[in-house]
Amino acid sequence: MKKEIYMDHAATTYTRQEVIEAMVPYLGDIYGNPSTLHSFGARARKAVEDARDKIAALLHAAPSEIYFTSGGTESDNWAVKGTALMNSSKGKHIITSKIEHPAILNACKELAKDGFEITYLDVDENGVVDTRQLKNALRKDTILVSVMAANNEIGTLQPIEEIGKIVKENSKAVFHVDAVQAIGAIDIALDKLLFIDLLSISSHKFYGPKGVGVLYIRKGTRIRPLHAGGEQERGRRAGTENVPGIVGMAKALELAIAEMPQERERLTALRDRLIERVTVEIENSRLNGHRTRRLPNNANFSFDGIEGESLLMKLDALGIAVSTGSACSSASLEPSHVLLAIGLAPETAHGSCRLTLGKRTTWEDIDYAADMLKKVVKELREMSPLWDTIKTTQAKNP
Amino acid sequence: MKKEIYMDHAATTYTRQEVIEAMVPYLGDIYGNPSTLHSFGARARKAVEDARDKIAALLHAAPSEIYFTSGGTESDNWAVKGTALMNSSKGKHIITSKIEHPAILNACKELAKDGFEITYLDVDENGVVDTRQLKNALRKDTILVSVMAANNEIGTLQPIEEIGKIVKENSKAVFHVDAVQAIGAIDIALDKLLFIDLLSISSHKFYGPKGVGVLYIRKGTRIRPLHAGGEQERGRRAGTENVPGIVGMAKALELAIAEMPQERERLTALRDRLIERVTVEIENSRLNGHRTRRLPNNANFSFDGIEGESLLMKLDALGIAVSTGSACSSASLEPSHVLLAIGLAPETAHGSCRLTLGKRTTWEDIDYAADMLKKVVKELREMSPLWDTIKTTQAKNP
Repeated sequence: MKKEIYMDHAATTYTRQEVIEAMVPYLGDIYGNPSTLHSFGARARKAVEDARDKIAALLHAAPSEIYFTSGGTESDNWAVKGTALMNSSKGKHIITSKIEHPAILNACKELAKDGFEITYLDVDENGVVDTRQLKNALRKDTILVSVMAANNEIGTLQPIEEIGKIVKENSKAVFHVDAVQAIGAIDIALDKLLFIDLLSISSHKFYGPKGVGVLYIRKGTRIRPLHAGGEQERGRRAGTENVPGIVGMAKALELAIAEMPQERERLTALRDRLIERVTVEIENSRLNGHRTRRLPNNANFSFDGIEGESLLMKLDALGIAVSTGSACSSASLEPSHVLLAIGLAPETAHGSCRLTLGKRTTWEDIDYAADMLKKVVKELREMSPLWDTIKTTQAKNP
Repeated sequence: MKKEIYMDHAATTYTRQEVIEAMVPYLGDIYGNPSTLHSFGARARKAVEDARDKIAALLHAAPSEIYFTSGGTESDNWAVKGTALMNSSKGKHIITSKIEHPAILNACKELAKDGFEITYLDVDENGVVDTRQLKNALRKDTILVSVMAANNEIGTLQPIEEIGKIVKENSKAVFHVDAVQAIGAIDIALDKLLFIDLLSISSHKFYGPKGVGVLYIRKGTRIRPLHAGGEQERGRRAGTENVPGIVGMAKALELAIAEMPQERERLTALRDRLIERVTVEIENSRLNGHRTRRLPNNANFSFDGIEGESLLMKLDALGIAVSTGSACSSASLEPSHVLLAIGLAPETAHGSCRLTLGKRTTWEDIDYAADMLKKVVKELREMSPLWDTIKTTQAKNP
């Protein structure tokens, strides 16, 4: 049988069986519209409110601060555009980083067309945001700072507490955190992280269904709706609730947070084994992102002299699913904006590959992936004129 | 056993078994992210593209004109705000009707805050848009006209062809049609309805899952993204696709359109029986909306001297699920904006009740609903001081 080793959990995860089972009744018998007043509606409404209570408790937030959306991209767009449009009379300056998800960067690009000014913070060679630059960038008219908790491509964790403190001590800006990749991997206790005003979550990144997410909005934070209409979500996010999706997401988050301590430890050990084998056994390879302050399931490598896409295709033929760049932009041929931001040359960025591990990943999978990476990188380099040039140059300048 | 007669299909429908079965593989084994390049992604991408092809064929459109969204509210917001922001240099005038869905009306309200001017067209006593007023309202700077195909509360069908022709003959405005209630009830062949530039659809109104919809965008129509980010949906609607939802929606639409001719006939007969029994057997009752040019499954009544909410609760206790006003605003106590627009006094609007039939509705259900309506209206009137006043006035002015 052909191997099927999925190492692209940052792109999406499978939906857990327990989650599917929790959802099925709400696809079938319990189908009312939560906004309706009769018994059918009441049952659906109870399911939505129970899910909200559960998610709020898991994030140490109030249920009234949890807003259901269609996923991370909607949450990010709502956070950025909703804050900008609500506060434009106070200022039109927004700060974010160069390595944010395209949902943030492209929402900012649109606002720039409408007269907002955006500051894009640099990151160091590990992908950590320059906090001194942040402090200097904050102004009286800064209305929003948006920085992700963990990067989706290189896995680097940001010093969110330090960033949040700088924002709050030096400005009146709203602080948004894209936690899409971080949830289930790091602790997020919103009763402690008081500097976070807005936080984005996406269900399908932690073994929940696709098409559903959360925007956490701290009490008192002013924001315009992105989806205007009916009175759902206290009038802030209109549209009939995706009841089965919401129920599934709550179940998935419950399981992810319950299993986080053990799973984090297990994944970190697997990841470190992969990183060690690859960087030691494959010459002219490098790990992208911070060596230790990174997501437990993320390994991102660059290999001189090869094309990431060819690597991906050859690994796929061997039954291993990986990404180059991020899933969201992998259909494009542009080098990753994240890898460029950490200082990689475009040709090095092109020769990169992300492996993200998950609940089903075994030690055997790690060794198979390392073996196949070795084999495939060697084969590709043998066909590569670029690799000849690199070797010749290295021989001349040892 | 307690009766459970669901007569609120305009609020939401159950998800058909065939649809659930089509979705399940994409909740389980086929879980890749369609944007990824490996085999897991390819299988998911194929499912999304097959669904797109199917929906395009059913609507007589091109697959490249079908954009997946999280539902009708997102589609409506995208149509209105995306068109407005894209065309604001050409003009800032928008025309819609007084009886649109809150998703349209509230999106327009937001745009009004940002300097757009909105004309709200009147409707006649049956809820039909005033086309002469439309013609007079069109201006050089009109960039968008948005009119729904069928009203969600009173079921009235609009003369969309006539409206579309007026728009195109007298302006360069984009024409958007909210077809959320109409799909599955009336024919929508977009290769014939060439005046429609944008069209909104919501899956859960035709026995598909909640949380997924379509915005049809005719080739050449310029629109800004509502969800900016990754390259999904040809760069126009970012966010990981809700694969099971999209697959389910395509299956549901296929079944709905295949069964439309017979189902329309069956529902029309059931509806007409209900309308006849209620209006004949209950004194001081009236049908809201056009008698014949209405959705085959919609009956909306007003009863003098009662509160719609009490009626709803009493019917619910008898096992019949109905709505007052629309599902989307039923949690509010404001009288329906639709019923006010067709000329009802606020107290009459408050005494209204919508019954919307569906695939499982039987002749027996219709007679039970009519019997119970009679009984409950009588009981409520016996307790109502308002009803005494009405009767006394009528006796004095026969």
